[in-house]
Amino acid sequence: MIQRLCIIGVGLIGGSLALALKQADACQEVVGCGRSVDNLKRAVERGAIDHFDTDAAVAVRGADMVVLAVPLGSIASVLRRMRGHLSADTVITDVGSVKGSVVRAAQEVFSMPPTHFVPAHPIAGGEQTGVEAADPALFIDHRVILTPLDNTNPQAVEKVTEMWEATQAEVVRMDVQQHDAVLAATSHLPHMLAYVLVDTLARLPYEQDVFRFAAGGFRDFTRIASSDPVIWHDICMANREALVKALERFEGELEALKEAIRREDSSFITRVFTHAKQARDGVQG
Amino acid sequence: MIQRLCIIGVGLIGGSLALALKQADACQEVVGCGRSVDNLKRAVERGAIDHFDTDAAVAVRGADMVVLAVPLGSIASVLRRMRGHLSADTVITDVGSVKGSVVRAAQEVFSMPPTHFVPAHPIAGGEQTGVEAADPALFIDHRVILTPLDNTNPQAVEKVTEMWEATQAEVVRMDVQQHDAVLAATSHLPHMLAYVLVDTLARLPYEQDVFRFAAGGFRDFTRIASSDPVIWHDICMANREALVKALERFEGELEALKEAIRREDSSFITRVFTHAKQARDGVQG
Repeated sequence: MIQRLCIIGVGLIGGSLALALKQADACQEVVGCGRSVDNLKRAVERGAIDHFDTDAAVAVRGADMVVLAVPLGSIASVLRRMRGHLSADTVITDVGSVKGSVVRAAQEVFSMPPTHFVPAHPIAGGEQTGVEAADPALFIDHRVILTPLDNTNPQAVEKVTEMWEATQAEVVRMDVQQHDAVLAATSHLPHMLAYVLVDTLARLPYEQDVFRFAAGGFRDFTRIASSDPVIWHDICMANREALVKALERFEGELEALKEAIRREDSSFITRVFTHAKQARDGVQG
Repeated sequence: MIQRLCIIGVGLIGGSLALALKQADACQEVVGCGRSVDNLKRAVERGAIDHFDTDAAVAVRGADMVVLAVPLGSIASVLRRMRGHLSADTVITDVGSVKGSVVRAAQEVFSMPPTHFVPAHPIAGGEQTGVEAADPALFIDHRVILTPLDNTNPQAVEKVTEMWEATQAEVVRMDVQQHDAVLAATSHLPHMLAYVLVDTLARLPYEQDVFRFAAGGFRDFTRIASSDPVIWHDICMANREALVKALERFEGELEALKEAIRREDSSFITRVFTHAKQARDGVQG
């Protein structure tokens, strides 16, 4: 049971976590923190948080659990602001889509990674943003990846695990670097492709026709291009190395397919499509 | 009202068209044609066709409307087989995703495009294939693009328009070349990206994790990689020039984004994402 939970950034993820924990009776009190007072007031109205403060140094006081649910680019400044205002045994965790950069930010702010900081990433979300879109069922049957370091306190890891299990998520552990490589491939790269595709199409001379005649497949394919530009800019910066590697690998494969189409190499084309179909048919949904 | 409809290729599209026309009482008799007797028997059981013949030369006899619903690579050989067995006023149409190659095939087989041949493309379908997946509601509120040539008989165009309107589709007209450029951008290019992405990921060393931790966005994004490799190989071949052009444009834009990420050019990245989000938010669904 969490006594006093402080959520910094009460948006889709932060708000959904608060609602889920309240519904599960897994915390007694939730303090919200963020820049927009309007948003924090809406979060109170929605019952996600009990009260709030726009200053992280004040909001974290007396909290036994602090969750950072801000864009990745704001993690370091939030950590810096709360430094010196935490209790000795406060557990800190985050929900960022990249883990290496969060660990580096914690190292930078606290000189070394604090033993009570547990990097985490719930694989859930959507194109909607803000506490209006928050949903206590968002994490049910979704995975949450924890990437504790060697010196992370096991009790802190246990407390974060229990928190996420209370939302009915499945908690798994992974190495920081592997997490960032896997997510670069499965999430960050596809977002780049969708953004670039829609941006490219929107600048074609026959743009009206392009979007008018877009079929269902196109809508599915490009839905993620509606994601928040700030969040995704920060993800690009935070996971730059792994993402550039993933982009280079993809560019090489796309170029090979293009050349095969150009030279009418039917067996190459059919091999790529058949292999991809087999792999995709094995993924549910 | 169509007296005798002959559908060559009774799969998802051909079967759905037959079911929709029967449900709308828009045709009296449907003759199926295809290579697989098993599939044709299932089409009879499903009520899509009344009888069948595996020889197109026989199946088209006495038909006032012939619909080619075979993969693009088979259009020429099917047209060749039915040549000389059609009545003088038989209307021929097709459902191919590329129109330039179909027009060229008709020119090749009939020396010049027959005035009763109306190239058409229903923007509907899915990853499922075969008559089992056929659905009389498949075309409701979907667009069907007709690309008649200057010498196409207006009554033939009218008859094909009425056929598709009976399925509750919206019929529009477009120039052959523009159709192929628009579809290369909105449909063929996204399929290439999805196929290449899944193929690339399936060959990573941590492939198990890649598919295990794929989130909802990834599933939406890659669903079209489950599409039929034969159909899509044929589309690549048929629309080679427009598709290579679309791929080159995309590659240039992706490379520019990758370089912006590498040099941490925040304003470039944010501009691409924001522009794409605005364009995508304007598309329904």
